[in-house]
Amino acid sequence: MGIKEETIKMKAAAPYLAASSVEQRNKALLMVAENLRANAAKIFEENKRDLAAAEEDHIAQAVKKRLKFDEGKLRDVIKGIEQLVALPDPLGKVTLKRQLDEGLVLNRVSCPIGVIGVIFEARPDALVQISSLCIKSGNCAILKGGRETTYTNRILFQVIHDSIIDAGLPADCMLQAEQHSEIDELLSCHETVDLLIPRGSNSFVQYIMNHTKIPVMGHADGICHIYVDRDYDPNKAIPIIIDAKTQYTAACNAVETLLIHRDIAGKFLPVLAKALKENGITLRGTKEVTDLIGGETIGEQEFKEYLDLIVSVKIVDTVNDAIAHINKYGSHHTDSIITENAETAELFMQMVDSAGVYQNCSTRFADGFRYGFGAEVGISTGKIHARGPVGLEGLVTYKYKLFGCGQIVDDYATGKKEFHFKDL
Amino acid sequence: MGIKEETIKMKAAAPYLAASSVEQRNKALLMVAENLRANAAKIFEENKRDLAAAEEDHIAQAVKKRLKFDEGKLRDVIKGIEQLVALPDPLGKVTLKRQLDEGLVLNRVSCPIGVIGVIFEARPDALVQISSLCIKSGNCAILKGGRETTYTNRILFQVIHDSIIDAGLPADCMLQAEQHSEIDELLSCHETVDLLIPRGSNSFVQYIMNHTKIPVMGHADGICHIYVDRDYDPNKAIPIIIDAKTQYTAACNAVETLLIHRDIAGKFLPVLAKALKENGITLRGTKEVTDLIGGETIGEQEFKEYLDLIVSVKIVDTVNDAIAHINKYGSHHTDSIITENAETAELFMQMVDSAGVYQNCSTRFADGFRYGFGAEVGISTGKIHARGPVGLEGLVTYKYKLFGCGQIVDDYATGKKEFHFKDL
Repeated sequence: MGIKEETIKMKAAAPYLAASSVEQRNKALLMVAENLRANAAKIFEENKRDLAAAEEDHIAQAVKKRLKFDEGKLRDVIKGIEQLVALPDPLGKVTLKRQLDEGLVLNRVSCPIGVIGVIFEARPDALVQISSLCIKSGNCAILKGGRETTYTNRILFQVIHDSIIDAGLPADCMLQAEQHSEIDELLSCHETVDLLIPRGSNSFVQYIMNHTKIPVMGHADGICHIYVDRDYDPNKAIPIIIDAKTQYTAACNAVETLLIHRDIAGKFLPVLAKALKENGITLRGTKEVTDLIGGETIGEQEFKEYLDLIVSVKIVDTVNDAIAHINKYGSHHTDSIITENAETAELFMQMVDSAGVYQNCSTRFADGFRYGFGAEVGISTGKIHARGPVGLEGLVTYKYKLFGCGQIVDDYATGKKEFHFKDL
Repeated sequence: MGIKEETIKMKAAAPYLAASSVEQRNKALLMVAENLRANAAKIFEENKRDLAAAEEDHIAQAVKKRLKFDEGKLRDVIKGIEQLVALPDPLGKVTLKRQLDEGLVLNRVSCPIGVIGVIFEARPDALVQISSLCIKSGNCAILKGGRETTYTNRILFQVIHDSIIDAGLPADCMLQAEQHSEIDELLSCHETVDLLIPRGSNSFVQYIMNHTKIPVMGHADGICHIYVDRDYDPNKAIPIIIDAKTQYTAACNAVETLLIHRDIAGKFLPVLAKALKENGITLRGTKEVTDLIGGETIGEQEFKEYLDLIVSVKIVDTVNDAIAHINKYGSHHTDSIITENAETAELFMQMVDSAGVYQNCSTRFADGFRYGFGAEVGISTGKIHARGPVGLEGLVTYKYKLFGCGQIVDDYATGKKEFHFKDL
């Protein structure tokens, strides 16, 4: 059966999953945790097959590290599931209860989005995390993992799928796609799939965004900025910059561009140059920067997402110039200001049009776990629906339920009756 | 200057509008109301030019009625503006305040979406209503009205634009597009425009959705259902059906399809046929319906949005069959069940995947004013972001502000520090 037919079945199953009780969904999650533990040896064995294939294919060390699924990662995903079970039900929350008139009551109630397609990178723990979030939020999920984790994903999916069936949830509410060709088929399912969450490289996410009518949640690039203000604290600036660049260089929330206030450039730039050098970071900058401290000269329109130990540097005249640069060249992900001046910070955080606006801390904090969300399905740079790190809240929508006893609109249009709004 | 260049200027103005105080935005709204009143004679005069042109073009009576902008409509839009002024500021609301660790505080704060393009039908009052909602919510707006209201829209826009400038808001935060050709240019501005809200015919909205990368909020079609359950109250069913079909036949929330439970079909269908006939409504139905009460026989896959005095009728065996039909053939807009059985109603309202799910009342209640939202920019059948009638709440998003004092992620990754989440 093709993906299209599968998603039609899934769409039909979605209301049944949506109607399941939180007890049932939590039971399924606990069974997933239990069965992952019970099948640990088999899972590690399958993971070794993926690792051996990666070895043969000379896959980069960083990727191999993400690919590995060992006792430590198993413990982490099981802990994550248990945390998720402990969270309150995101469904059925009444966010508005209003009497429109005698005997006519409007409720706005949270409900699942429906059918979600997740296409993710070579991280087996991501498969478990995303499935768990979808189960808790009552969403059907189509999961497409990376080719590099075929064997690990297959057994993980099998364990999860068996568990949800045993827990009494509809079998059709979860599906694994294994072929790369199935991605294009999935992109055409706008009649059955409500949301796509792609996680991967900039070009991959761009491709998804440009080839589907399904709403896409996520981010293509992460060009994060740190602006060092005139009123900066030198003891904070350097450690934050080094952390934001080196703590996980390939992450979307790593810093790529530094903006330095002109008044402090003469004093700060040599210190910065020294720190960058000590940490193996290559400096690129506009001419006035490289004139001062060396490095390759580039124009600001060449500043980009390096995902590498390289950073772009530019001098700005005012905080407003920094804001204008970030809004023009940034990717609306996460940007930080280093300043002791609360007013300047407030202006920056108000005017920068990004999901995360920080004062005096590393851009690397942009993450669902670090925000205390428990887990995330991804980080959104879109402004429609969820923004920033997205946890359970981003996986639900709402519907309006209106309870009447025979009311017709004509009575209100003709003035025979009148609305009497009263929030209950 | 082309639309693209205009939206670039608008994007640059957006943070300044976002940073404006609610006093400033309310002042602008009150000046709009005052200046509309002061220019009433001129506005009515321009509207007469549009009406004369409509007369010459033999435009349909229903359209002419919407086109007319008279003392009554002026009073309504001014009343709407005053209501909007009275509403609390939708911006700067802190929806999450969490200490992540000592001296590291995360705030989630509501903010405008940014730049919104609204393309709407020939209703001058819609231009005022939508502009007002954008001003209150701090969003820049590009407004494209129907050709039929060129003169009226031009003067209304002039009055509104002058008012916001006088109130000290950025001149670039509002723009009127007049040429039909400018729509395609607007659709290509995905780098500067954050959201499109098209209001108009099914085919027009479909065209917009299929020709842009900008997120679109709204609805193409409205195939609303009424399901008459076995446990229905005959005194409620007929008035609700007649209201839902005739109170405003061309509206998206008018009913198009009736589903009747088999157990009551023999008794209810003749009564229905009589009522439809008395109200000038043409009946179409599946063979077993027309065998019983006449009318044109059509298959359920031919049921559609008529926007006319025509209704499709089908017999279903169970409430689950009704739900399955609605989820398969409906447009996820608004669907109503007529039943005295609370359990059946709950099942229907839980399982039907629509923005509005009603019990014992007319589908025509799906409307921002009737929900007590004051005004609406449109009704959304999408499930991402806003759903159902969309007022101020659907025009805002949020950003995460993180206040630190030098925190770096590495300290938490290496275990030197630990997160201590505490909601404040």
